[in-house]
Amino acid sequence: MAMSANGFIARDNDETPWSDEEWESFKQMCKSAGNIIIGRRTYELAVQDGNFPFEGGLNVVCSSKQIENKWGKSAVFVSSQEEAIEILSSKNFKTVMVGGGGNLNSQFIKAGLVDEIYLDVEPVVFGSGIPLFAPVDFEHKLELLEIKKLNNSTIQLHYKVIK
Amino acid sequence: MAMSANGFIARDNDETPWSDEEWESFKQMCKSAGNIIIGRRTYELAVQDGNFPFEGGLNVVCSSKQIENKWGKSAVFVSSQEEAIEILSSKNFKTVMVGGGGNLNSQFIKAGLVDEIYLDVEPVVFGSGIPLFAPVDFEHKLELLEIKKLNNSTIQLHYKVIK
Repeated sequence: MAMSANGFIARDNDETPWSDEEWESFKQMCKSAGNIIIGRRTYELAVQDGNFPFEGGLNVVCSSKQIENKWGKSAVFVSSQEEAIEILSSKNFKTVMVGGGGNLNSQFIKAGLVDEIYLDVEPVVFGSGIPLFAPVDFEHKLELLEIKKLNNSTIQLHYKVIK
Repeated sequence: MAMSANGFIARDNDETPWSDEEWESFKQMCKSAGNIIIGRRTYELAVQDGNFPFEGGLNVVCSSKQIENKWGKSAVFVSSQEEAIEILSSKNFKTVMVGGGGNLNSQFIKAGLVDEIYLDVEPVVFGSGIPLFAPVDFEHKLELLEIKKLNNSTIQLHYKVIK
């Protein structure tokens, strides 16, 4: 997930003014995992921006609202995180990339399904915005595995989630 | 400011489960600046935790509600950020440390009074909590000046605010 230095994954109006290097890193990670799970709103925004389906992987869209699949084999639409995991397991994926937004992130971490977190911290602070995790009751300790600079002012923090 | 990896400076109940190394860094920074400005709630919590006044500097408490000064010369109580800056200027301070909470941070950054930001990122994520900046309308680009490790999993990000 890309975010502002104070933890917002988008402006209030859903805009994501992130760096090219972050975008490249995101796409690369999606390719290496071979899949990505996203929520309905992230799907709608990716479609709107011409970014859907994300390249190099199976795009799994989690939505309680039924959505027609106009994307052929590159996308699957499911109604729950359990179904998303089931489908990816049945295809023998060992690594699953959870790609937001905040609601989906919260569902996955609250269910104990997040092993590692990559935070691409962009050099900007917003007064308000869409938080990394939609507000639900959880707390997880992390272990810092790596810090990487994506460009002069953007860093990637790689954490393990302690369970 | 110390915060969770997703931008919360405290749990919802005001608890701040930060590391000893972060606390040391905070106190050191207060000493080097020779001063700290904090808001009413941060003052009340610091008193409750036996941490007030912060050592090594003049403690300036910003509160619209009048508070009795029981702390002698180590503390000053003011009713606005302008008054806080005026007092510190009159004492020839060149560097002023803004020490939270979120409301005070937002007032200062929105007024264009923040030149640099130090974020001590602790290895924890909260589902919800007290945000680094209380929600107001602003956005500032930053420039990353330095990354420092305070311990194995806690990092300090030092940013310049682009104006």
